[in-house]
Amino acid sequence: MKLAVGIDIGGTNTVFGLVDESGNCLLQDAIKTGDFPAVEDFVNEVQKGVKGLISEYKDSEIVGMGIGAPNANYYTGTIEHAPNLKWKGIVPLVELFQGHFDFPISLTNDANAAAMGERIYGAAKGIDDLAMVTLGTGLGSGFVVNGELVYGHDGFAGELGHVIVEKNGRLCGCGNRGCLETYASATGIVKTAKEFLETSSDSVLSDLSEITSKSIADAALEGDKMALDIFDYTAEKLGFGLASMVAITSPKLIVLFGGLAQSGDLILKPTKKYMEQYLLKTFRNKIDIVPSQLKAADAAILGASSLAWQSVN
Amino acid sequence: MKLAVGIDIGGTNTVFGLVDESGNCLLQDAIKTGDFPAVEDFVNEVQKGVKGLISEYKDSEIVGMGIGAPNANYYTGTIEHAPNLKWKGIVPLVELFQGHFDFPISLTNDANAAAMGERIYGAAKGIDDLAMVTLGTGLGSGFVVNGELVYGHDGFAGELGHVIVEKNGRLCGCGNRGCLETYASATGIVKTAKEFLETSSDSVLSDLSEITSKSIADAALEGDKMALDIFDYTAEKLGFGLASMVAITSPKLIVLFGGLAQSGDLILKPTKKYMEQYLLKTFRNKIDIVPSQLKAADAAILGASSLAWQSVN
Repeated sequence: MKLAVGIDIGGTNTVFGLVDESGNCLLQDAIKTGDFPAVEDFVNEVQKGVKGLISEYKDSEIVGMGIGAPNANYYTGTIEHAPNLKWKGIVPLVELFQGHFDFPISLTNDANAAAMGERIYGAAKGIDDLAMVTLGTGLGSGFVVNGELVYGHDGFAGELGHVIVEKNGRLCGCGNRGCLETYASATGIVKTAKEFLETSSDSVLSDLSEITSKSIADAALEGDKMALDIFDYTAEKLGFGLASMVAITSPKLIVLFGGLAQSGDLILKPTKKYMEQYLLKTFRNKIDIVPSQLKAADAAILGASSLAWQSVN
Repeated sequence: MKLAVGIDIGGTNTVFGLVDESGNCLLQDAIKTGDFPAVEDFVNEVQKGVKGLISEYKDSEIVGMGIGAPNANYYTGTIEHAPNLKWKGIVPLVELFQGHFDFPISLTNDANAAAMGERIYGAAKGIDDLAMVTLGTGLGSGFVVNGELVYGHDGFAGELGHVIVEKNGRLCGCGNRGCLETYASATGIVKTAKEFLETSSDSVLSDLSEITSKSIADAALEGDKMALDIFDYTAEKLGFGLASMVAITSPKLIVLFGGLAQSGDLILKPTKKYMEQYLLKTFRNKIDIVPSQLKAADAAILGASSLAWQSVN
């Protein structure tokens, strides 16, 4: 049996596991990223863990290892100035891991890994042109064109979250105004709710001590008018940003992942409606928007491991 | 000597020629596209012309033929519903030409051909990630990612001209409002001049019987304040659209072609300034904007012929 190793490095946890060609995560483990202020100690702990998993599948062939990490540069195999990790400067992560393993190792950011994960195992199986949008605290994105990930000349392509959808709009963490992720993300939709509540309290949301994207979705599912309007407002921004992207890359499929995407039709339907409205006619009624088909618990490992299959096939 | 055939089909003229690997157009000829209401007659006339050119270079090896045409679909080798051509419906152009030649034949739209032309012969030699923007009557664009043209799932990717840069902005021929090409094109800049002249006549432009992008450029070069403001206004829209594109594909180089691009620093400098301003920090001060380096007279043939080299290399 052929297996790939997937490692997903997050600010809090690092998860790693073994994945077969069908996208089954056979074994996995996790450590706390923050427990290792020195990256060498981190790599040492992870490689021991990975070797432990591999020893359970002695008869298997390991085709390679894929790593998803924030601020990862595919070309250099480095993590560069990641604000949410303790390791400062430029970290030669692939080189460090390669000291412990013979198989090929690839590194990219988590949204790119997720895009390839959907293409290898998930909603975009066999699709050569697709866009992946992860709606988490921020908005991440990864693009596949002609069957290959779009890294761009510097390894940092795929920043749909920083396409400006509202000139002079909300201030973004990046310093610009009106970036898509200030509206279409868990943080963005909560901000929208708070703005809406400033002018009206006619909503079940006004009774809550804390508003989350989950509570907005719950209220919308119960028919709360303001919550539905909040989703419509969010979808308009997202649909606008997606239409700009489609005009450039014309994907067959757009896959949404993350908390907001789990709201299902609440976000999918109006986003599709607005995207169609802003699209050039050439592209209308051709492009599907679907939720991720990777099991949420395994998605990060699956995404990372998919990089290994890509270099094999 | 190895040679490639390039054919560029326009609404008025069709030009074709032989190009060597260094991008020298050795021989060329032209016919009036409109003289051939039946596409079969057109193909017959062009193939005779091409064979005539080839007969002058008997000892050469022809590696292939590239065709640039409006509404061209690379995947199917067809021209589809081209409003500016007499041939209606779906025209199987590659199939028709392939009946006359043994070498491989590729078809794509002119902006894609131009992008590949710059990569093979011009300003983007050896660059794997680039964007080509043609500023003519409208705004065309072609993108190269990982060294390959971006066709998208349907063959129609690369419509930067229809990225919306101004919500509820100018009505575009496509039916939407605020598309980039309604501002950043020969037509767009003339429209801007007319709008500016509605509120002020303090410009040499107010004395002209007809305003063209050339006359606006001439006035700007003489220091006419309004003409300079018109370029600044145009550049702001173009810079905004380019920044959205960069966030998605992160090209190393953006090449501008066409009448407006010939205005040189008048358009390049402010466009770069505004693009930088709207860019995510990650991408700032990394991306060059340059004018095309293909000789304008040969550019269309060179672009088309580059498709043939791409399939060889």
